Amino acid sequence: MDYESIDTIIPTLGKAGISTPIQRWEKNSHSRNFVSDTARVLIDVSLTSVTKTFKEEKEPPSFEIAGPREKIYFDPSKLRCALVTCGGLCPGLNGIIRSIVLELYYGYGVRNIYGIQYGLQGFIPKYGHDIVDIKPEAVANIIKKGGSFLGSSRGPQDVGEIVDCLERMNIGALFMIGGDGTLMAATKIADAITERGLKISVVGIPKTIDNDIHLVSRSFGFDTAVEVATNAIRAAHNEAQGYPNGIGLIKLMGRHSGFIASTAALAQQDVNFVLIPEVEFDLEGPGGFLDTLEKRLKLRGHAVIVVAEGAGQKLFEARGEEYDASGNVKLNDIGLFLKDAAISYFEEKNIKISLKYIDPSYIIRSLPANANDHVFCSFLGRDAVHAAMAGKTKLLIGHWNNHFVHIPMTASAGKRKQVDPHGKLWSSVLDSTGQGSLKNG
Amino acid sequence: MDYESIDTIIPTLGKAGISTPIQRWEKNSHSRNFVSDTARVLIDVSLTSVTKTFKEEKEPPSFEIAGPREKIYFDPSKLRCALVTCGGLCPGLNGIIRSIVLELYYGYGVRNIYGIQYGLQGFIPKYGHDIVDIKPEAVANIIKKGGSFLGSSRGPQDVGEIVDCLERMNIGALFMIGGDGTLMAATKIADAITERGLKISVVGIPKTIDNDIHLVSRSFGFDTAVEVATNAIRAAHNEAQGYPNGIGLIKLMGRHSGFIASTAALAQQDVNFVLIPEVEFDLEGPGGFLDTLEKRLKLRGHAVIVVAEGAGQKLFEARGEEYDASGNVKLNDIGLFLKDAAISYFEEKNIKISLKYIDPSYIIRSLPANANDHVFCSFLGRDAVHAAMAGKTKLLIGHWNNHFVHIPMTASAGKRKQVDPHGKLWSSVLDSTGQGSLKNG
Amino acid sequence: MDYESIDTIIPTLGKAGISTPIQRWEKNSHSRNFVSDTARVLIDVSLTSVTKTFKEEKEPPSFEIAGPREKIYFDPSKLRCALVTCGGLCPGLNGIIRSIVLELYYGYGVRNIYGIQYGLQGFIPKYGHDIVDIKPEAVANIIKKGGSFLGSSRGPQDVGEIVDCLERMNIGALFMIGGDGTLMAATKIADAITERGLKISVVGIPKTIDNDIHLVSRSFGFDTAVEVATNAIRAAHNEAQGYPNGIGLIKLMGRHSGFIASTAALAQQDVNFVLIPEVEFDLEGPGGFLDTLEKRLKLRGHAVIVVAEGAGQKLFEARGEEYDASGNVKLNDIGLFLKDAAISYFEEKNIKISLKYIDPSYIIRSLPANANDHVFCSFLGRDAVHAAMAGKTKLLIGHWNNHFVHIPMTASAGKRKQVDPHGKLWSSVLDSTGQGSLKNG
Amino acid sequence: MDYESIDTIIPTLGKAGISTPIQRWEKNSHSRNFVSDTARVLIDVSLTSVTKTFKEEKEPPSFEIAGPREKIYFDPSKLRCALVTCGGLCPGLNGIIRSIVLELYYGYGVRNIYGIQYGLQGFIPKYGHDIVDIKPEAVANIIKKGGSFLGSSRGPQDVGEIVDCLERMNIGALFMIGGDGTLMAATKIADAITERGLKISVVGIPKTIDNDIHLVSRSFGFDTAVEVATNAIRAAHNEAQGYPNGIGLIKLMGRHSGFIASTAALAQQDVNFVLIPEVEFDLEGPGGFLDTLEKRLKLRGHAVIVVAEGAGQKLFEARGEEYDASGNVKLNDIGLFLKDAAISYFEEKNIKISLKYIDPSYIIRSLPANANDHVFCSFLGRDAVHAAMAGKTKLLIGHWNNHFVHIPMTASAGKRKQVDPHGKLWSSVLDSTGQGSLKNG
Repeated sequence: MDYESIDTIIPTLGKAGISTPIQRWEKNSHSRNFVSDTARVLIDVSLTSVTKTFKEEKEPPSFEIAGPREKIYFDPSKLRCALVTCGGLCPGLNGIIRSIVLELYYGYGVRNIYGIQYGLQGFIPKYGHDIVDIKPEAVANIIKKGGSFLGSSRGPQDVGEIVDCLERMNIGALFMIGGDGTLMAATKIADAITERGLKISVVGIPKTIDNDIHLVSRSFGFDTAVEVATNAIRAAHNEAQGYPNGIGLIKLMGRHSGFIASTAALAQQDVNFVLIPEVEFDLEGPGGFLDTLEKRLKLRGHAVIVVAEGAGQKLFEARGEEYDASGNVKLNDIGLFLKDAAISYFEEKNIKISLKYIDPSYIIRSLPANANDHVFCSFLGRDAVHAAMAGKTKLLIGHWNNHFVHIPMTASAGKRKQVDPHGKLWSSVLDSTGQGSLKNG
Repeated sequence: MDYESIDTIIPTLGKAGISTPIQRWEKNSHSRNFVSDTARVLIDVSLTSVTKTFKEEKEPPSFEIAGPREKIYFDPSKLRCALVTCGGLCPGLNGIIRSIVLELYYGYGVRNIYGIQYGLQGFIPKYGHDIVDIKPEAVANIIKKGGSFLGSSRGPQDVGEIVDCLERMNIGALFMIGGDGTLMAATKIADAITERGLKISVVGIPKTIDNDIHLVSRSFGFDTAVEVATNAIRAAHNEAQGYPNGIGLIKLMGRHSGFIASTAALAQQDVNFVLIPEVEFDLEGPGGFLDTLEKRLKLRGHAVIVVAEGAGQKLFEARGEEYDASGNVKLNDIGLFLKDAAISYFEEKNIKISLKYIDPSYIIRSLPANANDHVFCSFLGRDAVHAAMAGKTKLLIGHWNNHFVHIPMTASAGKRKQVDPHGKLWSSVLDSTGQGSLKNG
Repeated sequence: MDYESIDTIIPTLGKAGISTPIQRWEKNSHSRNFVSDTARVLIDVSLTSVTKTFKEEKEPPSFEIAGPREKIYFDPSKLRCALVTCGGLCPGLNGIIRSIVLELYYGYGVRNIYGIQYGLQGFIPKYGHDIVDIKPEAVANIIKKGGSFLGSSRGPQDVGEIVDCLERMNIGALFMIGGDGTLMAATKIADAITERGLKISVVGIPKTIDNDIHLVSRSFGFDTAVEVATNAIRAAHNEAQGYPNGIGLIKLMGRHSGFIASTAALAQQDVNFVLIPEVEFDLEGPGGFLDTLEKRLKLRGHAVIVVAEGAGQKLFEARGEEYDASGNVKLNDIGLFLKDAAISYFEEKNIKISLKYIDPSYIIRSLPANANDHVFCSFLGRDAVHAAMAGKTKLLIGHWNNHFVHIPMTASAGKRKQVDPHGKLWSSVLDSTGQGSLKNG
Repeated sequence: MDYESIDTIIPTLGKAGISTPIQRWEKNSHSRNFVSDTARVLIDVSLTSVTKTFKEEKEPPSFEIAGPREKIYFDPSKLRCALVTCGGLCPGLNGIIRSIVLELYYGYGVRNIYGIQYGLQGFIPKYGHDIVDIKPEAVANIIKKGGSFLGSSRGPQDVGEIVDCLERMNIGALFMIGGDGTLMAATKIADAITERGLKISVVGIPKTIDNDIHLVSRSFGFDTAVEVATNAIRAAHNEAQGYPNGIGLIKLMGRHSGFIASTAALAQQDVNFVLIPEVEFDLEGPGGFLDTLEKRLKLRGHAVIVVAEGAGQKLFEARGEEYDASGNVKLNDIGLFLKDAAISYFEEKNIKISLKYIDPSYIIRSLPANANDHVFCSFLGRDAVHAAMAGKTKLLIGHWNNHFVHIPMTASAGKRKQVDPHGKLWSSVLDSTGQGSLKNG
């Protein structure tokens, strides 16, 4: 991957000239180390690439390390902050909300913290959602619960109206937790803020249960999702073994990437086929999916299939016209498509199968975070606060090479991480499933 | 309920004249108490009814208590036994298999125990499923796993061929674990055995995750099913609360009875509507389901609905013709029907909702039994063995008034237990949900 | 068991002359059935005993069935109620609190509900614990959490001071959730109330995680306790198998009864020795525990032992003097005693063992109730309210032959349910463990 | 930290001259990428340090990246491999065993794989433990179970006898999974092998549930341990809140490091005091632990304390002589020590407390790995096989900067990773608990 062209400069609202309040820290004998803006972590850690870069007398690309700064930009006693969660539910949302609120309140002494309800809708007057004044007590116990304490909604809203709302409320720091679309909106909001000459820090925490954010090695909620997905695989395995020619077919999340499908398959080790967006397969013909499935049934009498929701989209192009009458939704649902395709295939061959289809997505994404994700979320939230207090803006809090880092929104937006078909993860999946290429010829 | 006409006499193959081997028991200082055939437990425990019966100088109906008999019919050293599991998966199948095998082997010294694979298919030569010779080691650890160690299948098979197989294998005791259809088949098998003059004990262990077997106060797997169903309800609640006008709709098992839906709703207490087969509701019109749902959304902004798969079947009669083109499967799926109905209803009213539909059935039924169900299954299996060894036949092992009992197959077959719309369970559901009658007018 | 002498008459405060408010119920088409005071369930359900009783022209003993009465004693708009939880934590306490509060508030319209904090201490001024005014919102979500919303404490308090407090607060109904000692106190409180001519209903909900309350077939929290105890057994089993001569020793709750130990052993099936208070065993000598343990290690290389905390108390009498120097606490701890005894025994024999001791009690009892226990608690709480509203007093809410019933405190107090050494449960444990009598000779 | 002096060269047995068999891989369209020995990942990823190193014209320290090599040293058809697990149980042992066996068998075609039972004892004839011939079927399902499939034992054995055994069995590759002591033994074994001129690859997989291995950013089982430890904290919290002046005291694993204690405290967020080996505290005096605990009780009425088993060891030095009579074991148990200290302290002050002590260690370490740890273990096992097949020896498989790497045993042995008292983890713990310095003055 070409890391050299990555933008790694974090915009700021101005000079951070106020000393960070340390009343909480100074009572600890081990005084807290502040992080300097010059502390940076290499993006590419390959010895070869780094050596090459230095040989060319260039500086290797690096990210600013996140954490508390010695000087801050905002006066905590005056600052008003807002939080919003957008898009689909994801384990860990409440942990991040809690962490941001507690760090603002106890770490810096900020007293005006507002929750924008139901995603971007919450900024827009016509929806009539109340703004919530958040106190620490209100969020102390929300991590035991899944979902979002603030609610969420999908879809874009007018950027001008959003900034109007921020201006009206006199917000100084806005924390936006959301996926692709939200971060795109965050970029536009930050630009509009600059245009209006306002001083509002916009800090994003990237949310995607699919773990496919560019330049973010891990996104919160992913670990929980994998853990819970294994239950569905176990169920599918028992159903498959339970009947002659039993097939368990599980659709897992992953519109553009197969990280959940691949990782869950490795975690459970009972899976015979993993289908992901990054790796094409043929449905029919010798060596194709159905043919290989038939061989597997002959050999072992049952099969477990995990399909990421974005896998096999080319199949819809090929067969598009057949499905027009049934409406768009069904057209693109690879899980139901494969279910129907397998049933037809074996019916034509007069082979009795027993196929069980499982779609656990809502059960997974609405759960509370597991321990690992919760710890991760608590760091993300704190670092988001440190970044905003320092007057940094238009950035994401990410995790890279074992450090929490600042990533300029422009560096990550519009790109996506995917499973490398030649990499360690997918190779391990192939080893574990023995599924082969699933291609003709 | 009229209990008086219930058949409570257990058929036997002949005189139990062999002393029960007690090598295992005698080494325990607390020697095992045998159960006498005259030990019976009242079916109806109402003081009023029992008094009335005695006043009329009749004997109140009662069940024989299950357990080891002092004399047995079969010579353990010669006996050959067979086990089969039929129909849908249910938590606890492996626990029962294990318990039967260990009791036969260690309790009585039976050495020839055969597993019939894949349900009734396993008896029929044309399917070509192997018979498994089961040793204790093979089943020692199967309770950690869901599904059925022996596999299963649905649908009837020819009774003659089944009995042919039993005769060919020289089976003396057949243990059948299955639902309605299986117990009906068991009855016919037992009759055919009698007709041929064979001496084969047929003992059934009723399986229905729905807990709706007549004269059986609790069926195995039900407790596990309720426990796991609460996870789906929790997910639906988080999804519902997460969005403006959020609706979580969960379809749970229950073709003819609402026990799982009602009990899970009480266990989780986050449910606003429970729809079950036993209680009719109106879909449309004032006071109907959709109207009440709209009112709930106006009041609280979200709603959680649990629907048993057999609820609202009359809706299909009324609307039957509209759905003919789409095929039979969809016609009867109340979950998808309600989903579509709610979406249309609010679309017409121009109210934006966010509905999430969850169908966790396969995840639930394929799990291992929880502790409670496992203990229950271990008793069911042992008592099935005791009954068969004593030469009893054409009976079920049931649980009634805190005792394990023998129920003649003829007493239970073809009838069904249902939620009493005036009883304690449904009243508690109405109290907990506050849903009202959901009827017009 | 002799049931005939059981007191089954429930005292009342006076005539229930007020119609039960049914505003909540009447909006349901299926109007709620009230339960009549004459509806009773037989205590003994054996056909033989009941027949004998009738032959002798006596009425068989029976319990009043719990549930809502058509007429109530208290005027809900005037009634002030108090709740208190006492003794050790137990899964389900919060479910009962919630159920009582919601039934009082929504079912009857009672608006003054007070929580007494930290058990009986909460009545006594010198401790200074606040009384809590409980509204439904405060308890809506407490079932997700273990422990007690009201806190608890151990030990008795002055009955006079308690009744002073009730009188001062003008309480009409007192709900006491607690074990042996609490129910004994409840009896005395009820008597003092009568002496003072007050009209206060005292309703007890028996709490014992050990499930050993006389005349109560099941106590709340027990099922959760068994389920969680199996995790500890699984851990002990893995530790035992993990090392040469590995021994896993788990101490489970059960001061006077071995229900948890026995049931958990059946649920997990990995246990080789179960020691309970009801069944004596010899520690040393041929056939004794240590000798049998040694044989088991020789045969299989590992062993799992479950000991109820009240087992083997006679061992302390015999060896009492040896242990005096070490203090009282250690003297009575059978878990640590057996650990030391086994270590010494094998050391003397020069056999290397690896013994792991696990005491999971606090982890078990402080958990939230599982689904099964929660449903059970919600019924207990509601029925406690129905009983109090009807003016009944000095009673417990119990569960008997599948019905919730009213048990006079005098019938249950001071007696205890125990595992029958000749019964089905213990026989199954012996079959499952193969431990034998563990007695010399 | 000074990374420059780290030894990063992996010893080899000789030239890897055999082409890696790729029968399994070539059927996949996406052929597997081999990893070159020149692929290395930087150890230090700080931009400043790396720049400085290059300015000094030195090469920055780096680790070899793990993975399959194009050429291997051993002929799979002749190779005989051995596996051994040593020391305490840890979640994931079975996952690593399974992964090594399956990769050897299916990935390379190795057919002779031997399990050494019960740790290093298994090599020594006098213990008489059998060697197990492991086939894939034997390990296919072991990941559902905790513990070690091969058993384990503690303590050193004679290195000469171990190498005798390897020589006798004609082993070419030895996989050792264990902690500190085991890796020290592995180094000596590798040295003895070299001295004897044998060609045996020794590959270590570092095991420490405490996550404190030098140069290994994460050790398997740690994530599972943290997850399960949160249950104990939740229990302690409920117990603490349940009583007046309730204290929940949990001892967690961590002889030399506080990673589990710190991370679990962040995951659960109900903890008020975390005590770890890396940070000293005063027990008595103003500002000390007991004084601060008293203040906390006054303020909030309850407290939750997590103590790592290696914390506060200096307290034993000070008080050593008082405890001599009671034996060594008790002397060093900080959990029981703090329990006793707190009880005495409050007794003297005449303050009634209710302290519950929880030690969940055995329950934690004997569990199966969670999904995250299992995926991790499956990579560790595969990479261990790749390293051995390539003829590399005296190395560990580690994880560093998101890559699996080869670490020379000499680089890691005898050093330890610890929680940095000025770093992000401990700062977050201090923020979360608000415990302060716990030091006098």
